[in-house]
Amino acid sequence: MELIHVMVNGAPGNMARQLMRHVIAAGDMNLIPMSMTGPETAEKEIAADGVSVRLIRPDEKDLLLDRLDTSGLAADGAKGSPVVAVDFTHPSAVNANAAFYAANGLWFVMGTTGGDRSALHETVEDSEISAVIAPNMAKQIVGLQAMLEYGAATFPGLFRGFDLRIRESHQRGKADTSGTAKALMASFQRLGCEFSADQIEMERDPVRQREEWGIPEEFLDGHAWHTYTLRSPASGAEFAITHNINGREIYMGGILDAVRYLAARRTAGPGKVYSMEDVLRAG
Amino acid sequence: MELIHVMVNGAPGNMARQLMRHVIAAGDMNLIPMSMTGPETAEKEIAADGVSVRLIRPDEKDLLLDRLDTSGLAADGAKGSPVVAVDFTHPSAVNANAAFYAANGLWFVMGTTGGDRSALHETVEDSEISAVIAPNMAKQIVGLQAMLEYGAATFPGLFRGFDLRIRESHQRGKADTSGTAKALMASFQRLGCEFSADQIEMERDPVRQREEWGIPEEFLDGHAWHTYTLRSPASGAEFAITHNINGREIYMGGILDAVRYLAARRTAGPGKVYSMEDVLRAG
Repeated sequence: MELIHVMVNGAPGNMARQLMRHVIAAGDMNLIPMSMTGPETAEKEIAADGVSVRLIRPDEKDLLLDRLDTSGLAADGAKGSPVVAVDFTHPSAVNANAAFYAANGLWFVMGTTGGDRSALHETVEDSEISAVIAPNMAKQIVGLQAMLEYGAATFPGLFRGFDLRIRESHQRGKADTSGTAKALMASFQRLGCEFSADQIEMERDPVRQREEWGIPEEFLDGHAWHTYTLRSPASGAEFAITHNINGREIYMGGILDAVRYLAARRTAGPGKVYSMEDVLRAG
Repeated sequence: MELIHVMVNGAPGNMARQLMRHVIAAGDMNLIPMSMTGPETAEKEIAADGVSVRLIRPDEKDLLLDRLDTSGLAADGAKGSPVVAVDFTHPSAVNANAAFYAANGLWFVMGTTGGDRSALHETVEDSEISAVIAPNMAKQIVGLQAMLEYGAATFPGLFRGFDLRIRESHQRGKADTSGTAKALMASFQRLGCEFSADQIEMERDPVRQREEWGIPEEFLDGHAWHTYTLRSPASGAEFAITHNINGREIYMGGILDAVRYLAARRTAGPGKVYSMEDVLRAG
């Protein structure tokens, strides 16, 4: 079997480190022992399950290109062994990294949120590569979102007259409102609920998270809990949907599937932006 | 505007009585002041918002036919003013009632559950009438069910490895497991959950319903609460869907919509069985 060569960018960040271990463990993948990092990173390398991974700052990108050349990996995804970069870096790096991947023929999975998303899509569409761009890599959440989208398209106004309440809790460091909550909110709006993004209730206080929400202590610094409640007192009805994620493990399976999906799409040609829902539909 | 003449069968049952009030209040409907009832019913008539409604036992059905004739209502749904029967009687009466409607050209909405459902469909398909047959008349629940069905068809196995738990609570008198819970269970099975109907947890004890579930006192004798929980401890994920209904009000809007849908389908010809999802899709 042809191995997929995977470069995980964003070490020493937690997502990248955890993903590296999964790539190493996957029988169909080979971890490229290099990881693009930010300009402020002082470490030169990290160890991932015994593999020493070189951290590449923005001013050292030539090292990366040299290595990709000398290792005999075809950077052009259309030829030779497939190479896929997975990006879990920083919102400020999204567009520069995409431009680098496009310029060097590296197909990629963009898991990093933020940046200029329209420009990100254009970079891929005008290039010789394709990419999976997915703000949420948890397959079950993407599937749930697709079900609600289907409902909104098929039964617009079904929940007209219902009061919507959206609550979400994330680790203290997350400043912005949950993007997933906003995405599902859009479906509920089409289902008839009057609601705006500023009504989403954000919880960032660890004490309330532990005591009122019941979030386990060890996940206070890494969780994503969401509840959407629809109430119609007049009709005696209450509906609720909850998706609570502790830690990062659930994202790993989705990322590996996205890498495999992209590697298998080389013959479909470049310039294509795939979503996580495309990955899911492929099964 | 042409009024829809509606006969609500199943008085003096609560569903029928409540529905009669809604038919009387609807500007586009006329309540036929007769209601088919069971052989054990002693009452001769009931009052619904000032309208006196004659209860018709099975041995008195000729009275009903006489009245439908003399009132100038065309029993044949294809001609004249539309007449629609709505059935909230008893599982033991489902098939006999359907045969009566079919024999006398009465289009109908069957909200009564139980009976021989295949025979029920055949009765309509072989007849000069059409019908809406819907075990659950709450539009939002039917829509939720359609969303899960879509998910199951589009992303089979999406929740493989997740543990499913289904809990439902109904009034003490309900002997069988919730049909809605079983219907949603089938979608979860296709989504990859290993689960069988005998694992559905039924609650019928009013003390636990009040104290543990928090079901309001006044709805202990009429409620339908359901929660489906999907857990994957290995991936730190928990999903939950809840639909809690107190009382019967939520069903009323769906029933009236089904009546209107059926009345508007007269030109589509007889022999058709429509579902509540068909009604929903019509908007």
